[in-house]
Amino acid sequence: MNEFELIARLTRTLPADSTVVAGAGDDCAVLEIGLPDRWLLFKTDAVVEGIHFTADTAPEKIGHKALGRCLSDIAAMAGTPTAALVTIALPQGFEVKFVEAIYSGLNALARKHSVSVVGGETTANPERLWLSVALLGFVPRGQAVRRAGAEAGDAIFVTGELGGSLAGKHLEFEPRLAEARWLAEHFPLHAMIDLSDGLAGDLRHILKASRVGAELLKSAIPVSRTARQRAKTGSSAKPAFVAALTDGEDFELLFTVPGAEAVKLLDAWKRQFPKLRLSCIGKITAAGGLAIRDRTGVQPFTQDGYVHFA
Amino acid sequence: MNEFELIARLTRTLPADSTVVAGAGDDCAVLEIGLPDRWLLFKTDAVVEGIHFTADTAPEKIGHKALGRCLSDIAAMAGTPTAALVTIALPQGFEVKFVEAIYSGLNALARKHSVSVVGGETTANPERLWLSVALLGFVPRGQAVRRAGAEAGDAIFVTGELGGSLAGKHLEFEPRLAEARWLAEHFPLHAMIDLSDGLAGDLRHILKASRVGAELLKSAIPVSRTARQRAKTGSSAKPAFVAALTDGEDFELLFTVPGAEAVKLLDAWKRQFPKLRLSCIGKITAAGGLAIRDRTGVQPFTQDGYVHFA
Repeated sequence: MNEFELIARLTRTLPADSTVVAGAGDDCAVLEIGLPDRWLLFKTDAVVEGIHFTADTAPEKIGHKALGRCLSDIAAMAGTPTAALVTIALPQGFEVKFVEAIYSGLNALARKHSVSVVGGETTANPERLWLSVALLGFVPRGQAVRRAGAEAGDAIFVTGELGGSLAGKHLEFEPRLAEARWLAEHFPLHAMIDLSDGLAGDLRHILKASRVGAELLKSAIPVSRTARQRAKTGSSAKPAFVAALTDGEDFELLFTVPGAEAVKLLDAWKRQFPKLRLSCIGKITAAGGLAIRDRTGVQPFTQDGYVHFA
Repeated sequence: MNEFELIARLTRTLPADSTVVAGAGDDCAVLEIGLPDRWLLFKTDAVVEGIHFTADTAPEKIGHKALGRCLSDIAAMAGTPTAALVTIALPQGFEVKFVEAIYSGLNALARKHSVSVVGGETTANPERLWLSVALLGFVPRGQAVRRAGAEAGDAIFVTGELGGSLAGKHLEFEPRLAEARWLAEHFPLHAMIDLSDGLAGDLRHILKASRVGAELLKSAIPVSRTARQRAKTGSSAKPAFVAALTDGEDFELLFTVPGAEAVKLLDAWKRQFPKLRLSCIGKITAAGGLAIRDRTGVQPFTQDGYVHFA
């Protein structure tokens, strides 16, 4: 049983009431709390030593990543983050300076996005460090961008460049908050997700929630220079193109808009965010499944993105 | 450096803005989110195998405790819980049935208190299981009961019976949500906290935040039958009275009201909650420190409550 099968089983019978706009199964929970103009977003995410970072990772980067992952999920709903709680579990013999440096990295990212850190807790975990961050945010009422909503004929877009994140980007990425809000304000986003499990894996989450398929154009996938180098030098066993589709933790935005908006969006994006690449990588199809088109034709893509404990 | 010293150091420089009514250092964070009649409460808490429960603990009780601890903190502010996220970290080779049983215990307690479980995450932690729960709640605007606010002359009350919680109660306690709301609606609560670190330790949190002292009447402390039995049989090295003051995880309410309200409160409580003991255990004093009065006079009490990693 992999992570997604386990979650599907656990979330079958969760208690919920009419204030839950979106519960388990999207990037954030979305809650109706009686505000006339806004919904509340609620997200929690953990990083564990040896899984999400190594024992020799710079502590500032651990803090950056722990909060950044949650911020990226708020971005994926086109929301604005507001307040965070931080739980940190410390192994025996921890150094206070190390813990302070974790907070220093986390606080710097919080300040950058006007997030208040309103407390949390410390506990012990003998063998390894972990952090769990809980984050609140807001989104204009009725405008949370969900995973469901993609329609046949939509153009599929992705920000940035993909693959090889483990070489460093997974610790230093910038959550795409401003970009997501700008997109939601100016274009009819049908579906959006942030890339944590890899392009193929996360696109499949959109396809499943939206009950559609997708055809990607191989030459349009923005493969990162890192993924190319790692493939070339043999430090990754995957071809660069497969790394771009299946490496996890890019923390870029993947979204769909009606096909007729595609050219207008690319033009407007270049003016608004000239330093960040935006790629139209394919289209949503009525037939299910994920297919890749290259010079030789169209083939199904069957490899998975990164799946925890698979 | 103990847990509280570390937290004090980490919370010196946290980012915050004017929407933070209470940040680090109270039972929950209290947030102003633009609702005319309510404040938002925000809490996170973790339980770790080998620290908060043992490897042979019934999984339903692990789930109950994980959510119950957060609910108890919402109770300590006189709030009403609404929605929770659950992060669960699983060791290698976990059994799906075991995880489902954890959720079963957690969901049952959630349903009892009308809490929606709106998602969360699973991750891996190779050596031991842990759960982190994030919980939201509401409190009428301006009516969150803080740790600060106790005044000289206040009567000090505690619900239930104290000590020996590790024998079982720490896994089965009922968070005092209805009791706390009733208290806040009917009496002028000056300060409140839930007992997680032990009566002496948690009372010291109130005294420190309120800049006052306290004198407890030894004969009035409600020592649990379990604490008496454990002292008698030698399974606890502490005298029963000291166990009631210093054992952790009773999850009862400790609060103060003006002395003139004490008799009226005891009478009203007996009618409202006839099955749950309420004890007036002493008074708040202008002079700092914690003292105990018995037949021989008044003596300072210097032992600490339970302190993580001390």
